[in-house]
Amino acid sequence: MKKTTLLGELIDAFKYLPGVGEKTAQRMAYYTLERARDEGKNLSTLLSQAAESIGYCKVCRNLTEKDLCYVCADKARDIDQVCVVETPADILAIESSTNYKGRYYVLMGRLSPLDGIGPKEIGLDYLEEQLKKGTIREVILATNSTTEGEVTAHVIRELTKKYKIQTTRLAQGVPVGGELEYVDSSTLSQAFSSRQSY
Amino acid sequence: MKKTTLLGELIDAFKYLPGVGEKTAQRMAYYTLERARDEGKNLSTLLSQAAESIGYCKVCRNLTEKDLCYVCADKARDIDQVCVVETPADILAIESSTNYKGRYYVLMGRLSPLDGIGPKEIGLDYLEEQLKKGTIREVILATNSTTEGEVTAHVIRELTKKYKIQTTRLAQGVPVGGELEYVDSSTLSQAFSSRQSY
Repeated sequence: MKKTTLLGELIDAFKYLPGVGEKTAQRMAYYTLERARDEGKNLSTLLSQAAESIGYCKVCRNLTEKDLCYVCADKARDIDQVCVVETPADILAIESSTNYKGRYYVLMGRLSPLDGIGPKEIGLDYLEEQLKKGTIREVILATNSTTEGEVTAHVIRELTKKYKIQTTRLAQGVPVGGELEYVDSSTLSQAFSSRQSY
Repeated sequence: MKKTTLLGELIDAFKYLPGVGEKTAQRMAYYTLERARDEGKNLSTLLSQAAESIGYCKVCRNLTEKDLCYVCADKARDIDQVCVVETPADILAIESSTNYKGRYYVLMGRLSPLDGIGPKEIGLDYLEEQLKKGTIREVILATNSTTEGEVTAHVIRELTKKYKIQTTRLAQGVPVGGELEYVDSSTLSQAFSSRQSY
């Protein structure tokens, strides 16, 4: 009965967001109507603008409302280093925690044949075109450390071999601040076998 | 730097929602743009419609886009029982867990002199007008079981005394399914002193 009202529809509309179920959607809708109508209108405007006008960067496939994303448009960044990531959110994470000054390439996913996601779906053909040009000196593989991420990294490694481009992968090991006792065994085993001179 | 982009603005716009910080806002924005643009547009439309057209029920102050909320508009509901709640979300909770067939009165808050919320701000004057009419047989006090909720209930109890209207308060006690060992001491003490014949 509640659901046929505008309020009910608003509650339902919130539920597409990740991590938002019925209860949270209710809280969001009530909070907006009781105390934050202006902020709600602002979100409404930006959501529709963003959904309409944010597309993909022509060079790196990052999300942007322009032709080039803010990284590719920045002339101060090195064009000879390319960091391959799965999603635009990974760029944000790397930008905020490292001082990397090269460019990115966003796969918008990872290889997953069972879900019908092959090399074309993650834009490997377009990545190869860029590798072919010979301007890229180093490819940094920053796909997730999951099985699918590893497979994806491996396949891209085959590509870079073909064009003889130096390729690196993010180091795996014990998290900074982590206690050995609580580190999972595959991570510990990996950290042990790739121990470094100190 | 990121923040001057449309994407950055969208992320910021999500942050007004309760329980949403920087990280969650990022996830919501990226999720919308990567996989749920239509749902995002739908939310945008409903948010602006709701913020514009949802107002308060003329009788009970519940949120509604019409003159009367769906409870007050329902002729099958008893008009001689009024359940006083703090927020519209409380109505939803009561409707979904009880088979109460009376009406509601929404305070849209609770008495809190320190925050400048007095009897007028929670509409007690308008509630009194309704009590005066003599059609209400029972007032059910369903304000929260917090200090402010209790004070609010007490003040409304004074009003209903004046008009000699039967007044009840939600029972306090051990939660259903709760183990005595883990029930907090004030609840247990309350449950013990208001023990019922069995």
